[in-house]
Amino acid sequence: MRNYPKLTLVGAGPGDPELITIKGVKALQQADVVLYDALVDPTLLQYAPQAVHIPVGKRAGKASVSQTTINRLIVEKAKLHGHVVRLKGGDPFVFARGFEELNYAQSFGLETDVVIGISSVMLPGYYGIPLTCRGVNQSFTVLTATTSEGVLSQEVIHASKHAPTAIIFMGLGKLDLVVDAYQEAGRGGLPVAIVSNGSLDHGTVVKGTVDDILEKAEEEKPAAPALLVFGEGASEAFVKTDHSNIEVQEIA
Amino acid sequence: MRNYPKLTLVGAGPGDPELITIKGVKALQQADVVLYDALVDPTLLQYAPQAVHIPVGKRAGKASVSQTTINRLIVEKAKLHGHVVRLKGGDPFVFARGFEELNYAQSFGLETDVVIGISSVMLPGYYGIPLTCRGVNQSFTVLTATTSEGVLSQEVIHASKHAPTAIIFMGLGKLDLVVDAYQEAGRGGLPVAIVSNGSLDHGTVVKGTVDDILEKAEEEKPAAPALLVFGEGASEAFVKTDHSNIEVQEIA
Repeated sequence: MRNYPKLTLVGAGPGDPELITIKGVKALQQADVVLYDALVDPTLLQYAPQAVHIPVGKRAGKASVSQTTINRLIVEKAKLHGHVVRLKGGDPFVFARGFEELNYAQSFGLETDVVIGISSVMLPGYYGIPLTCRGVNQSFTVLTATTSEGVLSQEVIHASKHAPTAIIFMGLGKLDLVVDAYQEAGRGGLPVAIVSNGSLDHGTVVKGTVDDILEKAEEEKPAAPALLVFGEGASEAFVKTDHSNIEVQEIA
Repeated sequence: MRNYPKLTLVGAGPGDPELITIKGVKALQQADVVLYDALVDPTLLQYAPQAVHIPVGKRAGKASVSQTTINRLIVEKAKLHGHVVRLKGGDPFVFARGFEELNYAQSFGLETDVVIGISSVMLPGYYGIPLTCRGVNQSFTVLTATTSEGVLSQEVIHASKHAPTAIIFMGLGKLDLVVDAYQEAGRGGLPVAIVSNGSLDHGTVVKGTVDDILEKAEEEKPAAPALLVFGEGASEAFVKTDHSNIEVQEIA
């Protein structure tokens, strides 16, 4: 019995294949077709041995599949095979065009579902960098370094002046311009971290301040994809209070 | 053989027990003690039948366990039993005081690890509300409605003027003040959603605009915990393009 045409957007998480959710695994187990991004760990496909696997991600040196083509593949494969799982890196709704895919599928009468995932927004935590910390920052802003035209976003300029913590996607190539903005805003001493290659085994973090991060990046050469964190939480020395003189007693 | 004293912070995700990660489940399977929050689904404890289970969350009508006591329990139980898993709703590093617990444990010589989780920040996606959408918004700001002193945060005032999309935690009780701020900023027509009770079975969404959300909340009475979304993506009518006149052809 063939499934009715259906699209499930599944967030695969930020690299480490164990950071997919139970719900995401269950969706894969019920897939007839899996359309997966280049940033998705291919070992995740093992949860869908029954399905057709189609790579649609952008890969360096190869022609990428356009968004229009991906949209059309979703509808075509769902009509042909039934349940299409669209496996996307991170979360489908954060800089991932999942909403466009969902709408396109719905306009062709497909049933749709969403399994949210761990966005790369959460990655700083993987390296011990808190997104919020009581007494330090009670907000953070998530943005891209450039507009869709490739120029530095006005939102980066705004964040450089006002955001206690900014998490900047796709910013490694514009690091010098982002640093300029923060220096112009008089925040040269603000801690900065470059989180590179997500939660993969070869993931790295480069830490510094606005004033020295370009030099450190020059030395350590972090690779894309990378996330920039501008905020107090990115500091090496952040809140290392020594509580060891406090006696621990039986409480419960 | 007893485990060495260790703390693993685990993000349980935003309610639905299937939104925990594989990595989170594996940590639970290796726990000697689980300290869990009130917002964590107790069925998750089934992954740790071998462990001691200790609730430490705040519950309405009962005295809550203080942060100091939680910190001390972590160290005490780790020294006594070995591996403590601290199971927290959402992600441990987003409005969750995970960093404080991590530091406290480290200062007593405990080994520490972090398993990031799906923050409630991602919850709008669960209800089809995109956090970013090409051509609409390329950033979002995550913040709390009030300061630790309980007054409306200056960051809400700032977001009401400048943030394309704001995700506001712990704001239901101050909804009138947040609405005032947005109206003062001349954004009365901005879509608003109140996401209540996370991804649980009894989760709900109330949608409206800045100008009518108070009335709608009065009618539908969303319950805490709730997340407020102020931004174009919260609109009912958001990007419902009809593509059904486009012919879908065989592509690959």
